Amino acid sequence: MKIAVFGTGMVGETIASKLVQLGHEVMMGSRTATNEKAGAWVKKAGKGAWQGTFAEAAGHGEIAFNCTAGLASVEALQAAGAGNLKGKVLLDIANPLDFSKGMPPRVLVNPDDSLGEQIQRALPETKVVKTLNTVNCYMMVDPGKVANADHTMFMAGNDAGAKGRVAEILRGWFGWKHVLDLGDISASRGLEAYLALWVRMWGALQVPDFNVKVVKNG
Amino acid sequence: MKIAVFGTGMVGETIASKLVQLGHEVMMGSRTATNEKAGAWVKKAGKGAWQGTFAEAAGHGEIAFNCTAGLASVEALQAAGAGNLKGKVLLDIANPLDFSKGMPPRVLVNPDDSLGEQIQRALPETKVVKTLNTVNCYMMVDPGKVANADHTMFMAGNDAGAKGRVAEILRGWFGWKHVLDLGDISASRGLEAYLALWVRMWGALQVPDFNVKVVKNG
Repeated sequence: MKIAVFGTGMVGETIASKLVQLGHEVMMGSRTATNEKAGAWVKKAGKGAWQGTFAEAAGHGEIAFNCTAGLASVEALQAAGAGNLKGKVLLDIANPLDFSKGMPPRVLVNPDDSLGEQIQRALPETKVVKTLNTVNCYMMVDPGKVANADHTMFMAGNDAGAKGRVAEILRGWFGWKHVLDLGDISASRGLEAYLALWVRMWGALQVPDFNVKVVKNG
Repeated sequence: MKIAVFGTGMVGETIASKLVQLGHEVMMGSRTATNEKAGAWVKKAGKGAWQGTFAEAAGHGEIAFNCTAGLASVEALQAAGAGNLKGKVLLDIANPLDFSKGMPPRVLVNPDDSLGEQIQRALPETKVVKTLNTVNCYMMVDPGKVANADHTMFMAGNDAGAKGRVAEILRGWFGWKHVLDLGDISASRGLEAYLALWVRMWGALQVPDFNVKVVKNG
């Protein structure tokens, strides 16, 4: 499948590399068509790996992953172009983290809005599904690193069909065993706010490879 | 032990009742010495149960539980009196939930502050430990309701000794098997922000008896 991955950081590279390994044709999108980090990734990843602008990647992909830094995501996706992403599924992995004041990063939470909702508003004809943002990038594509993958991935979005497709991707491509649908895209508020807990768990556990398993009665 | 429980709602009643069952001398504190809900609880709970003002309860307790509604907590604890709570451990269970706009409640998150920190600032000589706020009140005192108690309770606070005492209370009195110390009271930001995820999990799971188990490598 042709896939767009927006972002050249650790998350983008990890997701893009996994998708290439799975045999997909992946274009890593960034501000410029000649971005050095994207170029280095294309060389390393080999067959099935391309680079391009955000707009070129958006045009290439049948589905897309937003792996840009949260504070730059809306601008990046506007550069990708609402028209290029029309009707497509966008997995939004970004978190609204502000690293400008040191570690742990500030999590830009808001009782009444979220990055996922901002992205959905910026791309009204795209099927935005918030997911994967609650674990570090190595866990995203290899949940079996911890507890034999017996833990939970969340997702949220307005389109039931898109969430069904994303659940297949999470299970079939990445190996997630437990996928919990939290409802419409406004649940991104919770998924992003959780990062404020995640950064403190990271500090307490002192390893980035961890997650939570949801347990309930029945 | 003599214990103060601030708040007459479901959380206060559940915690206070459990403490009476454990043989403690519990005073439920509220705005007035003759609060009807507190009076009804005293009759129901029987031996070991008292009621009083916030200040009377604070004076009675060797330790205290803040079970007031989050939006009223700082005012309630100011009424309890910093002097009455000086040197004591306060378990802060409250969440900054705004129910005024319907369900699910708005979670009043803030990247740079939290209710736990506001309470610690209001009571600078009290050892505030944020805990138990991440599960419903029946789970707080009976974690074995779910998955044989194989899931995680968090705590945060500035005083290591106080956290040690709280961990004993969580384990010994309430039956928590896994207690994770997230560091100083500023981790309340994460513990309260998590509620924004909790309310959406509640909606998705359709039962209030659930929690998360933290799983990690090693």
